[in-house]
Amino acid sequence: MWQSKNQPSAMNSTTLHQTPIEALVFDVFGTVVDWRGSLLRWFERFARESGVTADWPTLVDAWRGAYQPSMEPIRRGQREYVTLDVLHRESLDRLLAERRLETINDEQRRAMVAAWHRLDPWPDSPPGIARLKQKYIVAALSNGGLGLLVNLAKHARLDWDTVLSADVFRQYKPHPSLYRGAAELLGRPPESLLMVAAHPGDMTAARSCDLRTAYVDRPAEHGQPRVRSPQAGEAWDYQVSSLVELAQQLGA
Amino acid sequence: MWQSKNQPSAMNSTTLHQTPIEALVFDVFGTVVDWRGSLLRWFERFARESGVTADWPTLVDAWRGAYQPSMEPIRRGQREYVTLDVLHRESLDRLLAERRLETINDEQRRAMVAAWHRLDPWPDSPPGIARLKQKYIVAALSNGGLGLLVNLAKHARLDWDTVLSADVFRQYKPHPSLYRGAAELLGRPPESLLMVAAHPGDMTAARSCDLRTAYVDRPAEHGQPRVRSPQAGEAWDYQVSSLVELAQQLGA
Repeated sequence: MWQSKNQPSAMNSTTLHQTPIEALVFDVFGTVVDWRGSLLRWFERFARESGVTADWPTLVDAWRGAYQPSMEPIRRGQREYVTLDVLHRESLDRLLAERRLETINDEQRRAMVAAWHRLDPWPDSPPGIARLKQKYIVAALSNGGLGLLVNLAKHARLDWDTVLSADVFRQYKPHPSLYRGAAELLGRPPESLLMVAAHPGDMTAARSCDLRTAYVDRPAEHGQPRVRSPQAGEAWDYQVSSLVELAQQLGA
Repeated sequence: MWQSKNQPSAMNSTTLHQTPIEALVFDVFGTVVDWRGSLLRWFERFARESGVTADWPTLVDAWRGAYQPSMEPIRRGQREYVTLDVLHRESLDRLLAERRLETINDEQRRAMVAAWHRLDPWPDSPPGIARLKQKYIVAALSNGGLGLLVNLAKHARLDWDTVLSADVFRQYKPHPSLYRGAAELLGRPPESLLMVAAHPGDMTAARSCDLRTAYVDRPAEHGQPRVRSPQAGEAWDYQVSSLVELAQQLGA
């Protein structure tokens, strides 16, 4: 029993896993693209062009805050699947009403929802994914719709092999159907898939479905840099601070 | 009424359609990759390495001949969806039995089925798709499974934005659920999708679902070059002899 449980997890991964990694599946919002910085820039431009004034950072944070709760009825089977665009619009309408911003018209609201289709990447994402693609299958595995994710990939230069979206499964992460479904569609055992995400909940769910896990630290996702990463103490297979570093660790 | 019905269809398309084309969806087997030439090369190598002798061209043609009939029970709702890999294996087993080639073992049969994952492209396909990708969404829309199509894209350097496969829809073309489903998943009206295929049946079905159509002539698909293209007389929106020509016609 020479092997200690406290060894670096990447080494555990190499020595314990028999199945080689073949495909990397990526969370997108927060892991690959900077939704908050991108939306803030979008709303600043909107404010300049429209003359509408509001506390945009608070609105953006409240909008993203509505993200997980809005999916819950679908995850629990209490509501039929609708796309993230629909959920985004519902949350937005409610938040604008609460803030007495009803003068913002339908066309402007559509543009706000569409801003999620053109988020900017973290700088390391396009080169990291391009390198990883040389050695592995690289696929989005996101709660966005396919149309949104394809638009986003074009905008942010994310060169996926393919896009796996919530609307393919008509369900939202962390429901297990997405992780298992990704492996099944890719025609590979779950152990050969590596889930890449900045959110421990996504990773834990992926691990429960036998996928391997790579944690990407994105301390600026919510604006205020965190002092300590929340993944500390968790034994992910890989822990990196960028997708370029992940490519290095995976020899891509 | 200055507009004649006998004008070139590309001009009709430009003048009659209000919706601009945003996404190109491609049939793959025969349209983008040369399944017959690739499989013949594979079987020649197999024969050299295994010493097994058989009339491989006839086997390859019979195998492809079993393709459409094998999907019919699924299209008619008489059989649950299974992937093309499963159908390929069933047809192969039957054809080998008919030819008294039962000595070909399970591992060899798996390799034969997997040969469909590594077909070579027609020479114009990778550069044509790369050019079209600069201006449009480019996606596979094929009866292959997602795993097969991703493997094929890696092998043949087909740089799709995303892959839409039969197993996403659990149904086979020309069932309308694939054409309508592709538009729905891409988040766009069917009129903004252009179906690119070398097979009139695929095109007719796409057109019935309001997609636009681009016919690619592949006279060597079945080995013997055809004298006259079967699309003659059909009013497709575009008719080309290569994907590079399609890029030229679409200004990409």
